[in-house]
Amino acid sequence: MAVVGATGLVGEAMIEILEQREFPVENLYPLASDNSAGKTIFFNEQSRKVELLDSFDFSQVDIALFAASDDVAMQYGPVAAREGAVVIDTSAAFMDEPDIPLVVADINPQQLVDYNLTNIVVCPGGASVPLLTALAPLHRQVGIHRLNITVCQSVSGNGRAGVEELAAQTAALLNTREPQTRVFSKQIAFNLHPLAGAVADNGATSTELQIIRATRALLGNEYLDMHVSCVQVPVFFGHSATVHIETDSPISAWEVRDLLLEIPDLDVIDEPDAGGFATPVTEAAGNDQLYVSRIRNGLDNENSIDMFIVADNVRKGAALNSVQIAELLIAHYL
Amino acid sequence: MAVVGATGLVGEAMIEILEQREFPVENLYPLASDNSAGKTIFFNEQSRKVELLDSFDFSQVDIALFAASDDVAMQYGPVAAREGAVVIDTSAAFMDEPDIPLVVADINPQQLVDYNLTNIVVCPGGASVPLLTALAPLHRQVGIHRLNITVCQSVSGNGRAGVEELAAQTAALLNTREPQTRVFSKQIAFNLHPLAGAVADNGATSTELQIIRATRALLGNEYLDMHVSCVQVPVFFGHSATVHIETDSPISAWEVRDLLLEIPDLDVIDEPDAGGFATPVTEAAGNDQLYVSRIRNGLDNENSIDMFIVADNVRKGAALNSVQIAELLIAHYL
Repeated sequence: MAVVGATGLVGEAMIEILEQREFPVENLYPLASDNSAGKTIFFNEQSRKVELLDSFDFSQVDIALFAASDDVAMQYGPVAAREGAVVIDTSAAFMDEPDIPLVVADINPQQLVDYNLTNIVVCPGGASVPLLTALAPLHRQVGIHRLNITVCQSVSGNGRAGVEELAAQTAALLNTREPQTRVFSKQIAFNLHPLAGAVADNGATSTELQIIRATRALLGNEYLDMHVSCVQVPVFFGHSATVHIETDSPISAWEVRDLLLEIPDLDVIDEPDAGGFATPVTEAAGNDQLYVSRIRNGLDNENSIDMFIVADNVRKGAALNSVQIAELLIAHYL
Repeated sequence: MAVVGATGLVGEAMIEILEQREFPVENLYPLASDNSAGKTIFFNEQSRKVELLDSFDFSQVDIALFAASDDVAMQYGPVAAREGAVVIDTSAAFMDEPDIPLVVADINPQQLVDYNLTNIVVCPGGASVPLLTALAPLHRQVGIHRLNITVCQSVSGNGRAGVEELAAQTAALLNTREPQTRVFSKQIAFNLHPLAGAVADNGATSTELQIIRATRALLGNEYLDMHVSCVQVPVFFGHSATVHIETDSPISAWEVRDLLLEIPDLDVIDEPDAGGFATPVTEAAGNDQLYVSRIRNGLDNENSIDMFIVADNVRKGAALNSVQIAELLIAHYL
């Protein structure tokens, strides 16, 4: 097993989850692109040296978990796949490839049957996995024909550099120094930005398009009427989303709650007046659970539901699903 | 002229704006409910003692600007109106009264004609004024039949106590001390909450209902299909909103931009890839402008527009509109 981007936030979480779930790894190869190569990481209490991605021979491994940028995935994913490793990629690089299956382990494990068309499997981004985990059962039950979603992305969506920038800017401002911007184009401390990621020609960002494509693919409706806005917020860990859903059949907020409670690893916390709501800091960060709060019908409208979803984007959103996909591959295909 | 809640954030901004616009005030009476009475404030370089609201005789003034809580407005608004002052209220207390006009000075000044039905005029909340300023011209041009809005509320929506709590919690966390919660029910520093304000029986919050009611009233469609989620974010000043709009007639993002540019005090900042977007800190805070970014059509859909709106909730959202309403009253009715 190789982990590409092993020293990043998602890579580290993958290695931690491999340990916690006692994944049968014979040899773990932590890989990184340049400045992190040579560092030491620990796996099952044994030290491993981080190797250089560029010179790695992927024929040594069955599975390569990619926790790197779109560019790195685009460059090295096909190489690894050609050399015989099954690539599980968390970036948006292969989002538009019709032959590459997009898999959330809890929702569409059957799609993995197509893994060998290209030897690449896509794990949808940090915001999509939790969203789809909550939406898929609802879609099966009452049919979703419309979605409006605003995602509030935490700075860890930009990796460790994003986390460090929020911390450094906050400390600077509290000491009345000028905050420095590197990762984000404007101050992010005590602020929010109306986008996360690069902007495409049509005005949507890559993250927004990724969420729309993943949702349409996983709900099996490529024309689903769907509108997504991503906002970058000064939160370290945990992507949140306000979700507006229009359904084919009427459903009450209580029925939605009962349906969601059947989903493994999903908690409903919903007594908002008594402080009964989930937040990134108090519930999501560091956990593999997904949390749903504020489930309510539209005013006088039983065909519409609003709710709030929050989960740790690094663990629940990216790392855990990748490891779960690897488990399914081992169990059924490799 | 009386200002109720004169030592609060909105009250202070009202007094500042009265000065800046050279509003013809003969005597300014700053009022407060208890612990702030006796303090001194300055108006046009003259000191004024803050008087106790409870014992004030409103027959001395023509206009009373209310920058207080729903409870204070509910208790003292009708008293002031009965004693002969025209009350301009920024709270949600009179939101549901059919005889009380809801006015945004730039949009429906003609509604002021009904001011003397009750002697009370409502200025919609900090999030609604900027939203409606941008939406009303669009509605006139192409007809809006559906709105999905997520508002990211800054902590100044909870007054000075909200601002102080975010600052204190942030400082505590950077010094590895436990953050204290008083105003907000959970940690707000580096976090967000899926609600702002109290929750009603139907699961919506008072703020969400207020935005829906104000929008329906001002766009003149009490059945407008509208869904709002409010999120509390760790930003000091400036409410932001992601807005999804469905229109009766098709309109391109460029046409929307041209239409918005005709609105006074509205700036379009929209080259997002080059850092061309507005944020609470870098544009909105402390300004009377309203900023719009990321104007885009839905994917393959010229009857849908998404955009981002941000403005200073204290100044643009509440204080400025109240003073503008007072100016209209003086000019046309008093």
